[in-house]
Amino acid sequence: MDEFASIGHWTAERQSVQWQKERGVVLGIGDDAAVVQLPDEPQQQWQWVLAVDTMVETIHFNDKTMSPSDIGYKALAANVSDVAAMGGVPMHALVSVSVPRAWGPDRMRSLYDGLYECADRYGVAVIGGDTTSSPQHLVVAVTVVGRVETGKALQRSGAKPGDVVFVTGPIGQSAAGLHGLLDGQVSTMPEPLVRAHRRPSPSVLAGRLLLQRGTCTSLNDVSDGAASEAWEIAEASGVCLVLHDRQLPRSGALMSYAADSGQDALEWMLYGGEDYVLLGTIEAEDAEGAKAALEAEGIPMFIIGEVEVGGPDVQLVTGGAGSFGLERRRQLQKRGYNHFG
Amino acid sequence: MDEFASIGHWTAERQSVQWQKERGVVLGIGDDAAVVQLPDEPQQQWQWVLAVDTMVETIHFNDKTMSPSDIGYKALAANVSDVAAMGGVPMHALVSVSVPRAWGPDRMRSLYDGLYECADRYGVAVIGGDTTSSPQHLVVAVTVVGRVETGKALQRSGAKPGDVVFVTGPIGQSAAGLHGLLDGQVSTMPEPLVRAHRRPSPSVLAGRLLLQRGTCTSLNDVSDGAASEAWEIAEASGVCLVLHDRQLPRSGALMSYAADSGQDALEWMLYGGEDYVLLGTIEAEDAEGAKAALEAEGIPMFIIGEVEVGGPDVQLVTGGAGSFGLERRRQLQKRGYNHFG
Repeated sequence: MDEFASIGHWTAERQSVQWQKERGVVLGIGDDAAVVQLPDEPQQQWQWVLAVDTMVETIHFNDKTMSPSDIGYKALAANVSDVAAMGGVPMHALVSVSVPRAWGPDRMRSLYDGLYECADRYGVAVIGGDTTSSPQHLVVAVTVVGRVETGKALQRSGAKPGDVVFVTGPIGQSAAGLHGLLDGQVSTMPEPLVRAHRRPSPSVLAGRLLLQRGTCTSLNDVSDGAASEAWEIAEASGVCLVLHDRQLPRSGALMSYAADSGQDALEWMLYGGEDYVLLGTIEAEDAEGAKAALEAEGIPMFIIGEVEVGGPDVQLVTGGAGSFGLERRRQLQKRGYNHFG
Repeated sequence: MDEFASIGHWTAERQSVQWQKERGVVLGIGDDAAVVQLPDEPQQQWQWVLAVDTMVETIHFNDKTMSPSDIGYKALAANVSDVAAMGGVPMHALVSVSVPRAWGPDRMRSLYDGLYECADRYGVAVIGGDTTSSPQHLVVAVTVVGRVETGKALQRSGAKPGDVVFVTGPIGQSAAGLHGLLDGQVSTMPEPLVRAHRRPSPSVLAGRLLLQRGTCTSLNDVSDGAASEAWEIAEASGVCLVLHDRQLPRSGALMSYAADSGQDALEWMLYGGEDYVLLGTIEAEDAEGAKAALEAEGIPMFIIGEVEVGGPDVQLVTGGAGSFGLERRRQLQKRGYNHFG
């Protein structure tokens, strides 16, 4: 599939922007979520934010990596994160589950237990669903609906040279957790990594605070890995994002597990997905103010780079200040996250 | 699965009506679609209607029954029909497709061709999607968003004794079409039956006309078979629906194929699903007026029964006037549609 794996490939240029606009579409396919409003009613205070995400057994999870309730929780959390990445408030969800014979009532009940645990935590009303049989594998597709102040949704396309690049929490933890789970090391590995993979925490409050500041120029959630998210912003904004290796947040759990297992923590940080923290750009003058505001709410904010003229490009600076050797720059690969690959 | 196959089983009493209402939910799980509005904004002209439907390879279709473009078309059409069943106008769709290796780019392109053919026909903007791998079978889950005048959505729960029961087109054609397709008789069977199964026409205009009359007391689309839809109305409204065998619309194509193949047309009419016509109840005084209004727009409307006190129950009257023998009544089974069963 590879080049055909993107929904954008199948939907590009099928319907014109003008045609969609007449149907209330403010932002169509190509960002974390779509934004719509009622046509012919210009004075609306809120617009709607919509996104869909799918989890497939053997592709996104298996018996070793996730319990049924984890699957339900994460299926909704991934969608909530898409709304967070627009600066929106999640409100409603519709859930499609295709159920193989092997999934009896007990596992199904657990799946919905987890789903509702996430729904209750984020204030999401489950308003619709469809349950069908599946010949072999469980498939869960969740659509989430949220709201955002009219015209304020945080897109990928606003990054400007001079902005700084930030991330709102540790990255690579979910991929490290998955590595350990597939290795059968669940009992000995750091709990934060397992939790990051099974029970991610979408960054709704961070998104809201960033939207309210009015200085956040682009935003993504880290679903496909930091490098991939940075690339999406670089391409949508037509700029170069420069990330600094030594500014990337390295969690203690990640570093100790990487050392113990002989794995490359940086690989997980750049190309491991499903961390569901936010990665974006903000006007440089407000970076410290935003950081203080988020930290006052218990949300970390790491300044990890800056936006330059040029590109679209994403570069990583290694070496230099504080470490031996010269500062070096290299382009980061565009590849995203491949679960069991 | 059977008793667990309904989404209602997994979601009942998980979130209170009040809690959902605070999040803008006007109508939650249990009808063809959910209805939501923005909370704290009482003066809205429109509410949103949302539904999700899923099609799974080997469960809902296979190579013999549907081409890739048919699958794309019908996946969206089934959802558009849910909006029609609320009297709403479809506007937006989000599409989740899980793709097995066997589905190469050509088949995928055809699937989206069909999907957009339906989208363009019904004015639906495709605003979001997710494409994932699948280990073996194609799964398509579509969520559709529509709008309806505030407070006017046509639910299942308003049928009253004295109302008449109607259906807005032939029933049983899709199931007959499926029978022929599975039998490999595609070249010799009546084209309307094949078309009914592969390219159903959701009844958006019929739903709009019924809503605008203000006399339609309940409405469903025939996705699971006429008997099942009648039961849903009977249960939601707490009434008895009495259907008359000789008033059921028997299409020429259906009757001739049933005769040729030695099958029971009535079985298809009552228990065959996916016809996507509308079945509902309307105040008796307006039945003829509504029929004339729909027929003026080229939409047939058949009066097939009446609502009585009692139940919940659904009964079929056979024999009597014009046929030999006494009039007899029997309760219809509650079972729904089983594709390949």
